[in-house]
Amino acid sequence: MSGKPLPPDLPDLQLPEPGTQLGAVSVRVRREADLGQLIAKLQGAGAEIVAINTFPATRHEPDVVRVFDFETRGLGSAKAATILRKLPGVARAEARATLGQIFGKRVIVIGGGAQVAQVNLGAVTEADRHNLRGERISVDTIALVGEKEIANAVRAVADLPRAHILVLAGSLMGGEITKAVQELQEVGIPVVALNMAGSVPSVADLVVSDPVQAGTMAVIAIADTARFSIERQRGRRY
Amino acid sequence: MSGKPLPPDLPDLQLPEPGTQLGAVSVRVRREADLGQLIAKLQGAGAEIVAINTFPATRHEPDVVRVFDFETRGLGSAKAATILRKLPGVARAEARATLGQIFGKRVIVIGGGAQVAQVNLGAVTEADRHNLRGERISVDTIALVGEKEIANAVRAVADLPRAHILVLAGSLMGGEITKAVQELQEVGIPVVALNMAGSVPSVADLVVSDPVQAGTMAVIAIADTARFSIERQRGRRY
Repeated sequence: MSGKPLPPDLPDLQLPEPGTQLGAVSVRVRREADLGQLIAKLQGAGAEIVAINTFPATRHEPDVVRVFDFETRGLGSAKAATILRKLPGVARAEARATLGQIFGKRVIVIGGGAQVAQVNLGAVTEADRHNLRGERISVDTIALVGEKEIANAVRAVADLPRAHILVLAGSLMGGEITKAVQELQEVGIPVVALNMAGSVPSVADLVVSDPVQAGTMAVIAIADTARFSIERQRGRRY
Repeated sequence: MSGKPLPPDLPDLQLPEPGTQLGAVSVRVRREADLGQLIAKLQGAGAEIVAINTFPATRHEPDVVRVFDFETRGLGSAKAATILRKLPGVARAEARATLGQIFGKRVIVIGGGAQVAQVNLGAVTEADRHNLRGERISVDTIALVGEKEIANAVRAVADLPRAHILVLAGSLMGGEITKAVQELQEVGIPVVALNMAGSVPSVADLVVSDPVQAGTMAVIAIADTARFSIERQRGRRY
């Protein structure tokens, strides 16, 4: 079992937090817009830039070539939109909800189709119960096969915005996947594993035999509306 | 039924595409690092910036305060890392896989826990079959209740990177949700609905009574490894 404690109260820059203003703005731009200038203006108004996504323009407006979605910390959506609207190349700037406000924390489930689907059943059903009480928890999955493919996906969870816990749902996982699990734990993301063959269960933060229960426990481990602490459960098997 | 055709071959800047180089780099920075300068350097080397995510530094390196993940188009990961490594405030720059290379296209499922879980069962199982043949399809969900909450989530799907199709999994959806569905269709994201009460089925691109079948059809509608065309199915009910 991993002996490393999680960083205490791991912050997430993209999630609502008391005392911190978050904002999101969607900006439709023409070719002459300068991404660096847009960022500098937001920063000048006190924003930390926490996310940017770029999309192709699909609404057929004349000359609009890209959509930039910015998420900010320390500056609200309406103000961010007002600031950007005046800049060269900006056709339109709309205040939005942040993705964290809508989709919240993410439980990530990776593994084989059969097990992923069952873990999901538990996780979605449990997330529903917490979302009804004001939480926002999403359950996001990918079904994959192969040691290298799964190890790469486990490593990439560290780069997924708002990923707070990983469930590994398979029958045999070890080798490179086990190394990837340890790397992920080092950045503060706990890992729940099904009871399976291979060395992954020996490094997982929690091992659960029943996939529906594994999904449920993953959700309550990250829900502010639950009292379950993965710290206290570390290394246990159910 | 929505008569609007999708924009033909809707591009996605964050997904692999023949002839286009994608890159990702994770940069661990000290306080003096300047996000604008990092971006300008990548752009100077020919990159379009397609995504940036900012994370708190959780690996306890001295003076490292933030992690910036950049995704680029027109510049590979290794080159991006080499360029950024030399800049002031950069403690470390690592080449990564892009999130699109790992997690691929996303099917988004929104609705009630019971139905979302069943749609997931179909979607994850079907995605597994395509991922085995070289596709990358993720199935991402949120269980929510309330017209306003669901409508806001539907609108936010337009801002989710790599979201290619939405499944609405509920028993009654209309009003503001129906408007949100139409807005989402306008940006080129098709919507599958369960056969349910309310006006959502009348505007959905496809209505499917069985939730497992709805999840399966959503996956084959976006898989390059399948021959199902939502264009040809538009307005049908199963």
